[in-house]
Amino acid sequence: MGMTMTQKILAAHAGLDKVEPGQLIMANVDLVLGNDITAPVAIREFKRMGAKRVFDRKKVALVPDHFTPNKDIKSAEQCKIIREFAYDMEIENYFEVGQMGIEHALIPEKGLVVPGDVVIGADSHTCTYGALGAFSTGVGSTDMAAAMATGQAWFKVPEAIKFVLKGRLNKWVSGKDVILHIIGMIGVDGALYQSMEFTGEGLASLSMDDRFTIANMAIEAGAKNGIFEVDDKTLEYVKEHSTKEFKVYKADEDARYSKVFEIDLSSIPLTVAFPHLPENVRTFDEIGDIPIDQVVIGSCTNGRLSDLRIAAQILKGNKVHPRVRTIIIPATQRIYLEAMREGLLEIFIEAGAVVSTPTCGPCLGGHMGILAKGERAVATTNRNFVGRMGHVESEVYLASPAVAAASAITGKISSPEEVVK
Amino acid sequence: MGMTMTQKILAAHAGLDKVEPGQLIMANVDLVLGNDITAPVAIREFKRMGAKRVFDRKKVALVPDHFTPNKDIKSAEQCKIIREFAYDMEIENYFEVGQMGIEHALIPEKGLVVPGDVVIGADSHTCTYGALGAFSTGVGSTDMAAAMATGQAWFKVPEAIKFVLKGRLNKWVSGKDVILHIIGMIGVDGALYQSMEFTGEGLASLSMDDRFTIANMAIEAGAKNGIFEVDDKTLEYVKEHSTKEFKVYKADEDARYSKVFEIDLSSIPLTVAFPHLPENVRTFDEIGDIPIDQVVIGSCTNGRLSDLRIAAQILKGNKVHPRVRTIIIPATQRIYLEAMREGLLEIFIEAGAVVSTPTCGPCLGGHMGILAKGERAVATTNRNFVGRMGHVESEVYLASPAVAAASAITGKISSPEEVVK
Repeated sequence: MGMTMTQKILAAHAGLDKVEPGQLIMANVDLVLGNDITAPVAIREFKRMGAKRVFDRKKVALVPDHFTPNKDIKSAEQCKIIREFAYDMEIENYFEVGQMGIEHALIPEKGLVVPGDVVIGADSHTCTYGALGAFSTGVGSTDMAAAMATGQAWFKVPEAIKFVLKGRLNKWVSGKDVILHIIGMIGVDGALYQSMEFTGEGLASLSMDDRFTIANMAIEAGAKNGIFEVDDKTLEYVKEHSTKEFKVYKADEDARYSKVFEIDLSSIPLTVAFPHLPENVRTFDEIGDIPIDQVVIGSCTNGRLSDLRIAAQILKGNKVHPRVRTIIIPATQRIYLEAMREGLLEIFIEAGAVVSTPTCGPCLGGHMGILAKGERAVATTNRNFVGRMGHVESEVYLASPAVAAASAITGKISSPEEVVK
Repeated sequence: MGMTMTQKILAAHAGLDKVEPGQLIMANVDLVLGNDITAPVAIREFKRMGAKRVFDRKKVALVPDHFTPNKDIKSAEQCKIIREFAYDMEIENYFEVGQMGIEHALIPEKGLVVPGDVVIGADSHTCTYGALGAFSTGVGSTDMAAAMATGQAWFKVPEAIKFVLKGRLNKWVSGKDVILHIIGMIGVDGALYQSMEFTGEGLASLSMDDRFTIANMAIEAGAKNGIFEVDDKTLEYVKEHSTKEFKVYKADEDARYSKVFEIDLSSIPLTVAFPHLPENVRTFDEIGDIPIDQVVIGSCTNGRLSDLRIAAQILKGNKVHPRVRTIIIPATQRIYLEAMREGLLEIFIEAGAVVSTPTCGPCLGGHMGILAKGERAVATTNRNFVGRMGHVESEVYLASPAVAAASAITGKISSPEEVVK
């Protein structure tokens, strides 16, 4: 019996020829990641373990992105702990406000992950890097601490679900719709502790940004990780962003999967996840008039340049609805700069949106656009749990940048077709 | 005995030929202003008074700017109160996120204040509009409530201190240095309940933005208001921004002043106010090596286009110090847009600064750059009281945009001459 992409990567990093689903292994990690919520806890654990130095100062990345620029005294103190640790340990990949962005957009941009890597991060959306053909997954702060000290982490080798993609997406339909569609299909525990492995001839038509979005939300189906087969687009991305050596792991022909789904990309409609679960998806034929108070375009899921381009295409020459606060958050400083140079930010401001400096911000109810009781937001973020963006009686509707931008204009959940001729 | 500018404006608005310092008067107000901290309290009072409608829906302005985009659930609820009141009362000058900015930059930009106006605002820096030859002053939320209902407010007519300006500022020296210099000279209670009236041939060389900065900080000398004699620059500004009718009030020749200061602008050096009072000023010959953690360029004091231009001039081609979080906050959406079009924001991002959407934010320890214990910031804001920007053991050094930008580059409090050849 052969191995899946994930299994092969894990085997190689554990120094084993072969691993089986369910097997406990100790694997070397290529990158250990933490943010301003999780890293301070990990740093405390690290010290408690008696660790003196990190295993490799090039293989730890610390990104204060959740409550930055510092929301309050508590977040300032959290960031200070990270900063002092980073300077003390001479960590190469510590990203200060001004050099940073949302971790899961920043890390690939900086070329810190390449195909075949094992990456752990004390953040659930660490699974994003599967878009690059890496195994990456979220862990707790204690695991992060141990890995910072030893360069290793324990894993239970996951089973896999195979998604064979064919066809191509229709106009306005994006990676966000694909993953919402899949979560709607399999449920928020549909891939529990399994890897979601994406392959098929349909892959070629998906941009890297689409793939990042899809891998990013693998966790929302309960998956241990999401991973994409490496193709020319991946290699091109890697060449552009990284100088790290890498190895591509392809699934064996006879790899075992718990399930196989064939998905025709051309059959996927624009999809919105209603409160209060990402699996609670609806298509526009099922959505009536739902007035909204806020739109958020950003986050590690959909704050990349192509997301902003789509939003700008729709917002250009339009005005956002006077009752909709429209908050656009480029995911990194570089994306911010490029979006500015391309004229996208100008389109946003002219339309009556605000553009925030990179931060996770409202996605997790952190800051920069929190909802009051009874308010509704359309957001390109990744979770719409009860109270996720503010008050427990507020609501978050997850959607693509295209749907979010269209909704900002009309003041209700809308398809881009309603506003673009 | 004649009247000062302030006294004449108050007399006219009270329907009196003459007022005396100390006299209690009831005057008509041309604008009543509130923000997301003060307006919710005023709205509650307004309702408790049994008021049904605001006296004039064109003469009330509500600007949620302090904790916006909503920092947290509490701020979201505060903004919701304002929003509902604004829609209910059909208030013309309610500014939603995306249409807004920091109130004291926004209100003049929108042409809502003209020379001779009486303006009250439930915010201490309402005195800013004195730059336009208006009487404007901060009041409590209860006074705001009463004025929203009746269009009137009680005042005790202030005595005045006259500042006769001559000469012109040296390179890099700005309105911020002027007002810090004055506060250093007279102290934080040096103008207690008096009006600070600015006149003299030196006025002509001060830009409107310099005047806004100076009037803005009149309150930091304890003044009831600051006010500038109207000249061609004022009239040009008003013509460009407003269609409101106005009347210019000039002080009588024989007006009485409690004090008169002659200030030679060319003698004012670059000035920094050390913790923890704006009067605690130092010049660069008295400032040693003081390393800093953060720079904030923004606020109602110094977040205008000319402030950003100065900062950009200094930051262009430079990088901010890797340990200094540099946060630049254009004061309004329009300033943000213009700064973007002029290429200033690009310079900031390239230098490693972050650009925030308009908000008061860190100035009052609100959000968007709060300090941890022991941290130091150079800020173009207006107050450096204990804990103003965060932890009680943090420090704020008040300075001009030029000094702030230079300090961002060197990582210590620096004069622009240190970094610009």
